[in-house]
Amino acid sequence: MAIALEEIRRAAEAIAGAVVRTPTAHSRTLSDITGAEIYCKFENHQFTSSFKERGALVKLLGLGASERAAGVIAMSAGNHALALAYHGQRLGVPVTLVMPRFTPSVKVEHTRGFSAEVILHGDDLEAAHARAVAEAERRGLVFVHPYDDEDVIRGQATVGLEMIEQQPELELLVVPVGGGGLIAGVASAARALAPSMQVVGVEAERFPSMHQALAGKPITCGPATLAEGIAVKQPGQLTLPVVRDAVQEIRLVSEQRIEEALLLLLEVEKTVVEGAGAVGLAAVLDAPERFAGRKVGLVLSGGNVDLMPLASILQRGLVRSGRLVRVRLEVPDQPGALAAVCECIGRADGNIVEVHHQRAFSGLSLKSAEVEFVLQTRGLDHVEELLGALRAEGYDPKAISPDEAG
Amino acid sequence: MAIALEEIRRAAEAIAGAVVRTPTAHSRTLSDITGAEIYCKFENHQFTSSFKERGALVKLLGLGASERAAGVIAMSAGNHALALAYHGQRLGVPVTLVMPRFTPSVKVEHTRGFSAEVILHGDDLEAAHARAVAEAERRGLVFVHPYDDEDVIRGQATVGLEMIEQQPELELLVVPVGGGGLIAGVASAARALAPSMQVVGVEAERFPSMHQALAGKPITCGPATLAEGIAVKQPGQLTLPVVRDAVQEIRLVSEQRIEEALLLLLEVEKTVVEGAGAVGLAAVLDAPERFAGRKVGLVLSGGNVDLMPLASILQRGLVRSGRLVRVRLEVPDQPGALAAVCECIGRADGNIVEVHHQRAFSGLSLKSAEVEFVLQTRGLDHVEELLGALRAEGYDPKAISPDEAG
Repeated sequence: MAIALEEIRRAAEAIAGAVVRTPTAHSRTLSDITGAEIYCKFENHQFTSSFKERGALVKLLGLGASERAAGVIAMSAGNHALALAYHGQRLGVPVTLVMPRFTPSVKVEHTRGFSAEVILHGDDLEAAHARAVAEAERRGLVFVHPYDDEDVIRGQATVGLEMIEQQPELELLVVPVGGGGLIAGVASAARALAPSMQVVGVEAERFPSMHQALAGKPITCGPATLAEGIAVKQPGQLTLPVVRDAVQEIRLVSEQRIEEALLLLLEVEKTVVEGAGAVGLAAVLDAPERFAGRKVGLVLSGGNVDLMPLASILQRGLVRSGRLVRVRLEVPDQPGALAAVCECIGRADGNIVEVHHQRAFSGLSLKSAEVEFVLQTRGLDHVEELLGALRAEGYDPKAISPDEAG
Repeated sequence: MAIALEEIRRAAEAIAGAVVRTPTAHSRTLSDITGAEIYCKFENHQFTSSFKERGALVKLLGLGASERAAGVIAMSAGNHALALAYHGQRLGVPVTLVMPRFTPSVKVEHTRGFSAEVILHGDDLEAAHARAVAEAERRGLVFVHPYDDEDVIRGQATVGLEMIEQQPELELLVVPVGGGGLIAGVASAARALAPSMQVVGVEAERFPSMHQALAGKPITCGPATLAEGIAVKQPGQLTLPVVRDAVQEIRLVSEQRIEEALLLLLEVEKTVVEGAGAVGLAAVLDAPERFAGRKVGLVLSGGNVDLMPLASILQRGLVRSGRLVRVRLEVPDQPGALAAVCECIGRADGNIVEVHHQRAFSGLSLKSAEVEFVLQTRGLDHVEELLGALRAEGYDPKAISPDEAG
């Protein structure tokens, strides 16, 4: 079932020079934090910022002359689209991509930048997929599936091959799972080259399709996950048996763990990953005892994260660490009262980011008003200092946790 | 005046294995954007995320046995502190750091994490500096200046040595300038090994101390810059003559350019740099004609940026690109009016992030109310679509630029 080593090696030779051989580097700080020995494979350093180039390129190189001339088509609003468009342009193979109508224009432009034809169609991935298949038929194009394709899986397998060559002492490979193309490839490489190396897959809790399929359960997915790149409802027909056969375990991670991991990679490794690229570290953070003391290779599968969620993740991280805090208190409803409390906060070195002052809806006496501040602080200790300073002046401040913020 | 090649080579040998030989990598996308051939030296990949480790380590290795036993002291709340603390711990040299009282606790803890003694003293860098000098005297410690020290400059010079070895075809090296330690070292290496290679320094417009010193003008600095790491008021006595002699030009960059460059490195290179680490790219963006067609090496000097400014930079970037927009319009003051306008925005696929609805302070008729929305969009084209959809329903929406936001 698994891909043969020889085929993986052939794929590696085929893509050499055109796809980056990304490093697999040890991280001392992530190791200290997790208790495991962490190695990161930086697939976010690919030119289009994901491992998808490997499979796409192997597929394109395997086309016959007439297929190359006619061109290929795929459905993707993400990394598969960029990978195909980029390598198609390099090789002179016409590429058509069907994307759902509401795809962010940045992504559409980025893909068009590689001279691909983009068809915007349908309100969701399913409708776009149907259109791509129909269009392939009608125009005589080769349809390139993002994961359920042997050439694609051979290409993704080179990630595993490189990790094993670069760090042969690894004991575990932790791999994001969407449709299963990457993990089927990586597990094939591990089985052939390092049979004692375990391969662990990770899905978002909200899209546990491979986990459910392996357990023979009905597949229920949603709502949306930060790990868009692996939000896949249907494991591949080719990938599922390889995963069943060669993967030890599929772990599920929560949205909060994914955020935490993404932020940690940003702060510690100074590297930008997308949600799907962070799930490996999320799995380790989630179950440190499972990985403690082991040499663990994480695939940072991609780096294409939108700025909007990234800004939100940063702010939520600040809130979690107390560096941004919401404080509510009561002040006398009289001139000078707000100035006095602001002065007290200033003396305690709190930086006021927002103020809300209200009367009509508070349950307080008519002589009082409720004020809510958002403050920037130096961390949890400083929050305590600030609250202490306010209490010392007779106020009764309450720090509001994100859950109760309303 | 410049450091001799032999000394730089000796420094390189001394630190080999203990400091990362970071890559100097070509960036196709940054080259496309700027019109220059851009190469980045990733000093943000050092263990403590900046080039400062080089100088600090050379200094520590040059100490005599009794000096090592007594230990060293420095004043720094930033990268110099981390670099000294880390290598001091590795080598068993006691390290004391004086930091201003209001240093973020994260930085204090991070430095203490390397077993350094931290003295919090003074309200600004000057007061902390005076305390460090006094403490060095009193306790018989070696004071390690962050840039005005020959060993430190020798260490920083290895950045230039590596860039020239890694990419000998470079025509220009663009280097952040604070006190001048890094650029004095890099320029020394370039002069010795590649005399035709130009060295260009970059300062924040708000801290143009080296630029002013070279011009013989009085030094005026401030207010605060995002490029904290190079917010230095006084060029070094050792570094100034080297810069005068071996650096072609010092360029100044605005805060907005620094933000733009930092964001571009995040989006394109998937790498996190601090403000100082972004000034090289900022200089190229600022004067593309100066660098067009040239092979330009940028030193991404460090990656220690706080999450708080990073979150703000991301949001401001979203505003600049139209992905976050503020729209103000008038609605009839009657039940159902807000619902109607929200529905119209929803149909045009605008995502409402904030709403402000006010009456008392608007200059409108008593029968109208003013509503202000913050909307998330797919970009500038989508903003136009949204405004068109609102106009088609009889509203008169105004998109408010960040400058007029009140």
